[in-house]
Amino acid sequence: MPIQHIKVLRNGTDEEELKVVETTGLPTWDADTKFTVVGRPQSRLEGLEKVTGRARYSYDVRLSGQLYAAVLRSPYPHARIRHIDTTKAEQLPGVHAILSSANAPDDITWYEEKSKLFDKTLRFIGDEVAAVAAESEEFAQDALRLIEVAYEPLPFVIEVEAALQPDAPRVHDKGNRVDEPTIYERGNAAAGLREADVVIEQTYTTQTAVHNSLEPHGCTAFWEGDQLTLWESTQGIFETREQVAEKLGLPEHHVRVVKEHMGGGFGSKQVPWKQTVIAALLSKQSGHPVQLMLDREAENLAAGNRNATVQRVRLGAKRDGTLTAILADIQVVVGAYMVGGEASEVNGMYERLYRCPNVRTEQIGVYINAGPCVAFRAPGHVEAAFALEAAMDELARALQLDPLTLRNRNYSEIDQKKEKPLSMPNALQVCYERATAAFGWQTYQRPAPTGPKRRGIGIAAHEWGGSGQPPAYAWIKLNGDGTVDVVTGTQDIGTGARTGLAQVAAEVLGLPIEQISVHLGDTAKGPYSPTSAGSSTQASVGPAVFAAAVEAKRQLLEVAAKLLEEEPERLEIRDGVVMVEGEPENKLTVAEVTGRLAPHMIIGQGARGPNAKDKTIRTFGAQCVEVEVDVETGEITVLRVVAAHDCGRIINPTMVDSQVFGGITQGVGFALTEERIVDEKRGLVLNANLEEYKIPTVADIPQMTNVPVNLPDLAANPTGVKGIGEPPLVPTAPAIANAVFDAIGVRLRHAPLSRRQLLAALATQAESIDKSAPPHTQEGQS
Amino acid sequence: MPIQHIKVLRNGTDEEELKVVETTGLPTWDADTKFTVVGRPQSRLEGLEKVTGRARYSYDVRLSGQLYAAVLRSPYPHARIRHIDTTKAEQLPGVHAILSSANAPDDITWYEEKSKLFDKTLRFIGDEVAAVAAESEEFAQDALRLIEVAYEPLPFVIEVEAALQPDAPRVHDKGNRVDEPTIYERGNAAAGLREADVVIEQTYTTQTAVHNSLEPHGCTAFWEGDQLTLWESTQGIFETREQVAEKLGLPEHHVRVVKEHMGGGFGSKQVPWKQTVIAALLSKQSGHPVQLMLDREAENLAAGNRNATVQRVRLGAKRDGTLTAILADIQVVVGAYMVGGEASEVNGMYERLYRCPNVRTEQIGVYINAGPCVAFRAPGHVEAAFALEAAMDELARALQLDPLTLRNRNYSEIDQKKEKPLSMPNALQVCYERATAAFGWQTYQRPAPTGPKRRGIGIAAHEWGGSGQPPAYAWIKLNGDGTVDVVTGTQDIGTGARTGLAQVAAEVLGLPIEQISVHLGDTAKGPYSPTSAGSSTQASVGPAVFAAAVEAKRQLLEVAAKLLEEEPERLEIRDGVVMVEGEPENKLTVAEVTGRLAPHMIIGQGARGPNAKDKTIRTFGAQCVEVEVDVETGEITVLRVVAAHDCGRIINPTMVDSQVFGGITQGVGFALTEERIVDEKRGLVLNANLEEYKIPTVADIPQMTNVPVNLPDLAANPTGVKGIGEPPLVPTAPAIANAVFDAIGVRLRHAPLSRRQLLAALATQAESIDKSAPPHTQEGQS
Repeated sequence: MPIQHIKVLRNGTDEEELKVVETTGLPTWDADTKFTVVGRPQSRLEGLEKVTGRARYSYDVRLSGQLYAAVLRSPYPHARIRHIDTTKAEQLPGVHAILSSANAPDDITWYEEKSKLFDKTLRFIGDEVAAVAAESEEFAQDALRLIEVAYEPLPFVIEVEAALQPDAPRVHDKGNRVDEPTIYERGNAAAGLREADVVIEQTYTTQTAVHNSLEPHGCTAFWEGDQLTLWESTQGIFETREQVAEKLGLPEHHVRVVKEHMGGGFGSKQVPWKQTVIAALLSKQSGHPVQLMLDREAENLAAGNRNATVQRVRLGAKRDGTLTAILADIQVVVGAYMVGGEASEVNGMYERLYRCPNVRTEQIGVYINAGPCVAFRAPGHVEAAFALEAAMDELARALQLDPLTLRNRNYSEIDQKKEKPLSMPNALQVCYERATAAFGWQTYQRPAPTGPKRRGIGIAAHEWGGSGQPPAYAWIKLNGDGTVDVVTGTQDIGTGARTGLAQVAAEVLGLPIEQISVHLGDTAKGPYSPTSAGSSTQASVGPAVFAAAVEAKRQLLEVAAKLLEEEPERLEIRDGVVMVEGEPENKLTVAEVTGRLAPHMIIGQGARGPNAKDKTIRTFGAQCVEVEVDVETGEITVLRVVAAHDCGRIINPTMVDSQVFGGITQGVGFALTEERIVDEKRGLVLNANLEEYKIPTVADIPQMTNVPVNLPDLAANPTGVKGIGEPPLVPTAPAIANAVFDAIGVRLRHAPLSRRQLLAALATQAESIDKSAPPHTQEGQS
Repeated sequence: MPIQHIKVLRNGTDEEELKVVETTGLPTWDADTKFTVVGRPQSRLEGLEKVTGRARYSYDVRLSGQLYAAVLRSPYPHARIRHIDTTKAEQLPGVHAILSSANAPDDITWYEEKSKLFDKTLRFIGDEVAAVAAESEEFAQDALRLIEVAYEPLPFVIEVEAALQPDAPRVHDKGNRVDEPTIYERGNAAAGLREADVVIEQTYTTQTAVHNSLEPHGCTAFWEGDQLTLWESTQGIFETREQVAEKLGLPEHHVRVVKEHMGGGFGSKQVPWKQTVIAALLSKQSGHPVQLMLDREAENLAAGNRNATVQRVRLGAKRDGTLTAILADIQVVVGAYMVGGEASEVNGMYERLYRCPNVRTEQIGVYINAGPCVAFRAPGHVEAAFALEAAMDELARALQLDPLTLRNRNYSEIDQKKEKPLSMPNALQVCYERATAAFGWQTYQRPAPTGPKRRGIGIAAHEWGGSGQPPAYAWIKLNGDGTVDVVTGTQDIGTGARTGLAQVAAEVLGLPIEQISVHLGDTAKGPYSPTSAGSSTQASVGPAVFAAAVEAKRQLLEVAAKLLEEEPERLEIRDGVVMVEGEPENKLTVAEVTGRLAPHMIIGQGARGPNAKDKTIRTFGAQCVEVEVDVETGEITVLRVVAAHDCGRIINPTMVDSQVFGGITQGVGFALTEERIVDEKRGLVLNANLEEYKIPTVADIPQMTNVPVNLPDLAANPTGVKGIGEPPLVPTAPAIANAVFDAIGVRLRHAPLSRRQLLAALATQAESIDKSAPPHTQEGQS
């Protein structure tokens, strides 16, 4: 009989923090388990609410007496505020509160130690100067225009190379390097290079990309007495509670964060931003609820982006393709501030994806006078994959090996960084096999060129985390009529968390999913769950729901056993009916059992236990891409993408497909069109909008196929589930770049692969198009 | 180390239902326990919210697009609806939905098996005829006036005696008796009477009293898609969810009931009333949220009242006062319908309060054409005490015994009904001793009459339940900064439940109460707690909070022990600091411990275990009253009341005082002024308002003293707490009536003790005023 004992352990993961977690005698869902609900396509439980417009997002909050806030933002990339006068704005009818450096609490720091909520030094266009709360958005905007600010413009820098010059304008007093370089080395990388028969050395760059969640950042804040409530668009309600409480000097139990529905975050909402605390302070000042939602311009200027990178990559290999060295020198452009949240470790993939004894990475963060970066779906890995997976393709070409052959030759079955076995050592192998088989990689016949159009194929892989982690808790109420309320403290950031969690509860309890409701997004009433980041929600919270459901089922069967005069061990539940094995007549519906418990319900509590300590749990995936390149116009059309991703046990194939298709779509944008463009002369962001910042439209999306992998990983948790949120975006762009080379023999090393870049490269290398064997020593090798 | 195991047991209380409850290895708060927070006066945590008007009641809900509903009510005490036409009302601008018998779902029954939500037969003035939802209350009222109804008036009956005549108009087809009489007998009551040296036989009547909660009944209902949310003024959020779901054919997990603050219920809100389902249906019809709050008239006509009673009481005793027989024939006037909720068992106190081998009670319910009754603070016991405690006083006078002596002579140390020991056999004794000592009963010197004013004293006692019961659950989140969120599914009906529960959590966790927040009143997110009725909230939910806090503390100390390098058993927490016994330097604050657990918190779950099975758990109390009677005007002034009530361990003396003072105040109203007055000719309620229905004002309240009793009862639960909500109202009225007799020698047997009754009785018995010994055979004896 599984009973949960809550014990205090040292956590089994990297950090040596003390954690309160669970040891379990829980059952597991291994590969042989038969399922009724899990593993079957299930449309979202909240789907109808969403498509009928009933689902309420942060924008939709309407409280009695609610005010609307707007923010005055810096028009300069670098400036000092000499003087600010809000008198005229205060006098505008309908204006209730104004905040600026003139009156904001001086003890609230933000971003970095010395930076204030309203800093008198402005470090990027979009930096917060003042905020107004008024009876309508229009009043608030009018008031902003009445605020008089005397700015002293300062020299600024927006290019990473320029920022690293000794005489560059300084974004911060300490200079433009965020910190000392982070260096990792195993073996002897220099020696490895010397051992190599073939060396590839190239520099790749990736752009600043903007998240562009459909729902922008923002919240409605209501500060009443000593209680602050935030209806916040956030990936982490508890993280927001903790940080906002700290910033405002409030105890955590007096801050409540509520998040019902959310239109995406992609990493940018895993930390609270200034506007949340600004809204809270405006509410305190005015005594009214204050809604402060960012418009698209503010969203794109000041609420995070994916860090641009410069990556100098060197690969060394033996003639048979065996890697002898991987080296990467990485510059990460962090913008004007370090924000926090999931770290953007570009180095990670270099260190883990391929078997190689000699690896060295060196990474440095660089400030510039532009909006700060923050985690963006698979941070670091998207950037790293663009470089590493293209370099591997270059290496394969140099060795005259099929890229797939090169990958298999350097396949790692262990975690080389921690020298531990991988929990699923063949998972990437399975991804390669399934993706290439479904794509027809081995049998691909390049069609003859039609006019200027050339076709080619490319492949790329990824590795990522997504194991999930403790702590996460769930409570289950099995009601008198056999329906179920699942209570968690997680949030559904748009991925469909409710549905996946409901499937777990339905499966354990043997109930139709329609009988399950999942409640989440409320720090006051829900139990702790971690921030929805790192592709971890189903893998972190799902096991807690699983454990709670197992406990509720145990109680249910104990009652049923008394009623049926049987031993609980002989009972099972199918489709809402408690049955005795081998006695088809001896049964009761779940509602008949719980009905006997009236006036009450069964309560189960569950906690997410620790991951296995002796193994490293990672997720993997591979994508194959076919493109068509127009050598006259430079247009790249992605024709099809076939993906195979290991996310452990698949709970809901529909939702996994959604994540894969969404990831590929963002990957296409990253590869071809998405880029924040900053005017060098004035530091202006030229495309902080959805017209000129080009995210893929329906017309830009290729045919996409997701080949299910479904390898339950019981090292992660008893449900065998790992994450799928972020990874599908990782391999798309390098696979496209590799396919472009395959089509036209031109290597594009700068994301996005713009037409201009492509046509320029074609012009330069017009004469050298030769698909057979590019010279083994390439441009830029030292 | 206390670990909670959730086990399935047959419940230890009367009902042989299966319950899922907890067995415990929990500590207990016995009489020797030293406390820091518990037992100390604590003003309400939500007090500031309430006095500043921030606390939101059902009336204060304002949702986007909210409509306001009004109900057309029967103007006849008994009528048939011949025809109803809502066409004109529908055409009124601003009207969104109309419901009546013409279009309401026909399958929703209410009150009784054959009665509908909108019944075509109307059985009392105030019965629901139709309802309108419109954009304002004024529009809705206007629309009501446009509804055309053709009524066929029917003969009606409003007096219990008339109702029991064979040819009386029939309230229901089955007749005016609700059911066969409920008969209880132990021993041989007739023989007991024959053995008696003295027999008292009298008939007492009590009036129909109206609850008059400051906040009337009502809710805001929003039916969106398949989800119904009710912001309801209710004593039982889960009971409301269950019943509303059943009425509307919705699964329970699609109905959410929310109750934040409440302005009293006094039993009348322990069941959902028609307006809740009407509001839900109007919301469904209109697609808008609909608020339907009763006005004072509707509240007093159609949302319950205390049943009037006629009680024929016979007591037999030996010359020394030993009771030989107690007999009671009871008629309970239920109004037009049986509502449900806590049963009004007038017979109970006759069967338990005094030691007597021969007891017989017979009780019958009687329909009349007036608003239905429902539980009202100590239902049955207030009525029974008025008769029994006056009859005991009459017996004492007949025997020339001090009433206190008579009581002590017939003191019962066991539960005679179940033949089980009482958990606290001397509790009533303690109440008698403390109340009479503080009052000066034994030494009372009657002042000489001043003009027409006479003084006298009276005493009365009560017994009641209030043990609390399982199931009830609580969850505790101990946050990273050492603050605590307690989550329960109970409700604070105005009694201050939040504060009492917070005190329990604070005490266990060794934290200042300011660090505790209690969340309640939400069926979606909170765990099950029972309806707040029967004086059970602190005694039912408190132990669940206690258990959850013990579990959270266990985890906290386990972590702290690791940090302090100590055994958990050697640790204790005082005022937020974890200390090692005997090592003053070795300590950490709770926040320092939980801070080490960042980014998460400790979670504890607790369940309320079963009561002791081998004992009967009751509460007791006694009140002494001094009155002054003006024999010229008939005015009765209650000068002072001294109360002593056993409610087990006292968690918060301030809140216990509040309950006692509130109960006495309602008792003064019941004794002297409160009465629903119905015009016999037309069946009209003449005082369905707060002007003519006389509840006591500040000027009517006597000097009140509550003498704390504080006898922890560990048979009830580990906190030793029992209920105090209802009992203080029970003894007040008979004590006043007894004091009036003591003052002027006139016995008033009909509540309320009106001036008219008093002056008439004085006139009749003017010559027989003799305080020494009334004749042992009184009027009415057969």
